[in-house]
Amino acid sequence: MFDTLLVHNELKGEAFLDELRGKKPLFVCTIATTETGKIPQISAAGKYPEFTDYTPPADAELLLLGKCKCIAGVPVTPEGIPTPALITMSALRLADIPVLVASGGLKVTPHVPFLELGGHPGNDIRTGKAVNNVEEVIQRAKLAGEHLAKAADYLVIGESIPGGTTTALGVLMAMGVNAEGKVSSSMPVNPHGLKVDTVRAGLAAAGERFGSLAENPVRAISCVGDPMMPAFAGLVIGAAAQVPVLMAGGTQMTAVLAVVNALEPDVLCNVAIGTTKWVARDVSADIKGIVAQIADVPVLAADLDFGSSRFSGLKAYEQGVVKEGVGAGGAAIAAMVKLEGAVTKAMLLKEVERNYAVLMGTK
Amino acid sequence: MFDTLLVHNELKGEAFLDELRGKKPLFVCTIATTETGKIPQISAAGKYPEFTDYTPPADAELLLLGKCKCIAGVPVTPEGIPTPALITMSALRLADIPVLVASGGLKVTPHVPFLELGGHPGNDIRTGKAVNNVEEVIQRAKLAGEHLAKAADYLVIGESIPGGTTTALGVLMAMGVNAEGKVSSSMPVNPHGLKVDTVRAGLAAAGERFGSLAENPVRAISCVGDPMMPAFAGLVIGAAAQVPVLMAGGTQMTAVLAVVNALEPDVLCNVAIGTTKWVARDVSADIKGIVAQIADVPVLAADLDFGSSRFSGLKAYEQGVVKEGVGAGGAAIAAMVKLEGAVTKAMLLKEVERNYAVLMGTK
Repeated sequence: MFDTLLVHNELKGEAFLDELRGKKPLFVCTIATTETGKIPQISAAGKYPEFTDYTPPADAELLLLGKCKCIAGVPVTPEGIPTPALITMSALRLADIPVLVASGGLKVTPHVPFLELGGHPGNDIRTGKAVNNVEEVIQRAKLAGEHLAKAADYLVIGESIPGGTTTALGVLMAMGVNAEGKVSSSMPVNPHGLKVDTVRAGLAAAGERFGSLAENPVRAISCVGDPMMPAFAGLVIGAAAQVPVLMAGGTQMTAVLAVVNALEPDVLCNVAIGTTKWVARDVSADIKGIVAQIADVPVLAADLDFGSSRFSGLKAYEQGVVKEGVGAGGAAIAAMVKLEGAVTKAMLLKEVERNYAVLMGTK
Repeated sequence: MFDTLLVHNELKGEAFLDELRGKKPLFVCTIATTETGKIPQISAAGKYPEFTDYTPPADAELLLLGKCKCIAGVPVTPEGIPTPALITMSALRLADIPVLVASGGLKVTPHVPFLELGGHPGNDIRTGKAVNNVEEVIQRAKLAGEHLAKAADYLVIGESIPGGTTTALGVLMAMGVNAEGKVSSSMPVNPHGLKVDTVRAGLAAAGERFGSLAENPVRAISCVGDPMMPAFAGLVIGAAAQVPVLMAGGTQMTAVLAVVNALEPDVLCNVAIGTTKWVARDVSADIKGIVAQIADVPVLAADLDFGSSRFSGLKAYEQGVVKEGVGAGGAAIAAMVKLEGAVTKAMLLKEVERNYAVLMGTK
C-alpha cells in the first residue's frame, strides 16, 4: 500500500497505515550528540569523528531551512554520501508536513527553533555513565508529546544521533534483548565486533551485565544509552496515549521500543516502526528479530529504490551505505500516506535528486 | 458571542470569531525576562523586582504542569494577587487546548519543554541597548510559526514578560505611535510618568526620538523593546500567512502589532487581538486608541467578571489589579469559542476558583 512494505506484524501494520490515510501528521526530529559517536569506525554520520557534533544540528537545519547553517554543505559520510536528512526533507516538503526539532542534549545547537528538554550531550558509553538527567528528560518529553498530540492527528518521530546503533545495542543488551549482530550500521561493513566490545566495556564499567537492567530502562539509558533516547521515549509515551505514533528509524528504534515497553506498555497499541527498505532487507542486521523479542508492534518500510538514480551518491544507498536516519523511512511513508498515494517512490526519488543536485552542487 | 465582547472593528471581529468556531487552536506562550522589569514601581509581575526573573518560567510551568517548579506557590503581585496564568491555565484545561512555550530570552529556564529561539534576556531600556539578536530571533520564530500553523487550525499567542507595557511604550514611541498615557498597567495606579521617563531615557541613550524608527522595527526593539517581541512578532508573521492568529494580551500587543505591520502588513488580515474586559475598559489606558493608529485589526475581549468571586484575590481583578497577562483573555476566548459556548464565563470563574483554592492553599 502506498509504496510501503509490511515487514513485520503485517495485519496490524496494514491497519495502522489505514488509520493514517489522509490525516495530518507532525514530524518531530529528536537530535542529540554523544562521545560514543566519536569512537573511530563506529559511525559514518560525519566525514570525521569530530564532525559528528555538527551532524544532528546540521540535519535539523536541513529539514527546516532546506540548507545547513552550522556547517558548509550537508553532512556526509567519510565516502561523501549525503545525510539521509535529504530524503526526509524531500518527503516532508512534497507532502507539506510540518517539522519540530527536539533536543535531547547537544554540543552544538542548530540555527533553527528547537524544543529544549533539559538534557545534556552524551558521554562515551565505555565510561558506563552515558547520559545524565534521563528521568527528567523523559518527563519533559512526555509533557511535550501530550500537548503535540492534541495539535496534530498523529506524530512521526525521527532521530539524528551519531553512534546511535551502538548505544541502541547497549540499552538492548542491558535490558536482556538479544541484539548482538542484529543492529544495523550506516557503514557498508557493519562493525558488529567493535559495537559489542564497546557495549561490554560500558556494562562492565557500570557494574551491569546482559539483562541486569531489564526492569530499569532509565538506568539502562543512563549507563549505556544516548541522550536521544529519553527525549524520543518520552515523546512516544506522551503522544501515543492519544494518537498514533510512527517511530521513524532503523534498529535504533528497537531500543526506544524496549524503553517504552518497560515504562508504559499500554501505549504500544498506538505505535509502529517505520523504516526504509534498506534496513528491512539489511542482511547484516535483523530488525524483525529484535522487535519480536520486545513487543507486538508492526514494522513498516518505505519501498525506496535509488538504483536508477543518475547520482552515484544516491545509488550508494542500494549498496547498503547510510540506509536510514533522520526518520527518512517514516517521513517517506507519512508523505505517501498523507496524500494517499499521490506521492509515489518515483516522485520522491525525483525530489531527492533535485535537492541532491542543489545541495551537493552537482548537475 | 460566546461571552466575548467586540471592542474595536466589530464587524471584522465577529467574522474572525466566527471563523474560529469549533476549530482546534494551539496556544503558544512566549516568555522572556528583562532588566527593565526590575525598575522599582514599573511592574507588579512579581512580589519583589528581583523575582521578575522567575515569573515567566513559573507562568510557563503553571500552564504545562498545573503548578510551578522554579518557585514555591505561584507568581503574585506585591499585594499577593496571583498571576493571570491561573486564568489561562483554567481556560486551556477546560477546553483541552494544547500549549507550547517559546523563549525569547530567559535568565531562569522553566522545568518544562520550551522552544528555544536563540534570544537572550533583555537589558534595561534606559541603556538604549535593550535586546540582542532581534533579526535572528524574528527569523527563527517565523520558521516556527510557519510549521506550527501547518499542525494547528489556528494559533493563540500569549506572553509573560515583566515590565512589558513599558517596553511596549518604548517601541510604540520609537515607531511614532502616540501611546503616552495609553498603555495599561498590572498595578492599581498606572505609573504613566515613570514609563514615559524610562522610554525617553532609552531613546536618548540610543540617539533616537519619537518616530525616528517608524520604518525600522528591528532597531526599535533592539533599542527600547524587550526579547518577547521578536519571538512573538516572528510567530505571528510565520503563522498568520496561513491561519488565523489571535494575539492574546493587552496593550503590549499593540507594540507587536506595530512591528508586524512594518515588516509584513499583508498577514494582518488573519490577525486579531484578544484581551480581557479589564484591559478593554481600563480608564487609565486606551488600547483602541493605539490600535487605530496602526492597523485595521479587530480587538476582542473575554467578558470575564470576578466580582462575584468568593476570593478577594480574584475580586481584586475587578479593581484593576493585574488585568491581563499570559494570554489570559485570548485563552478564555479560545476556550469559549472552541466549545461553541459550552464553556461560559461563569464556568470559567468556577474553574479559576477551584485552581485558586488548590494553588493558593485557600478553602
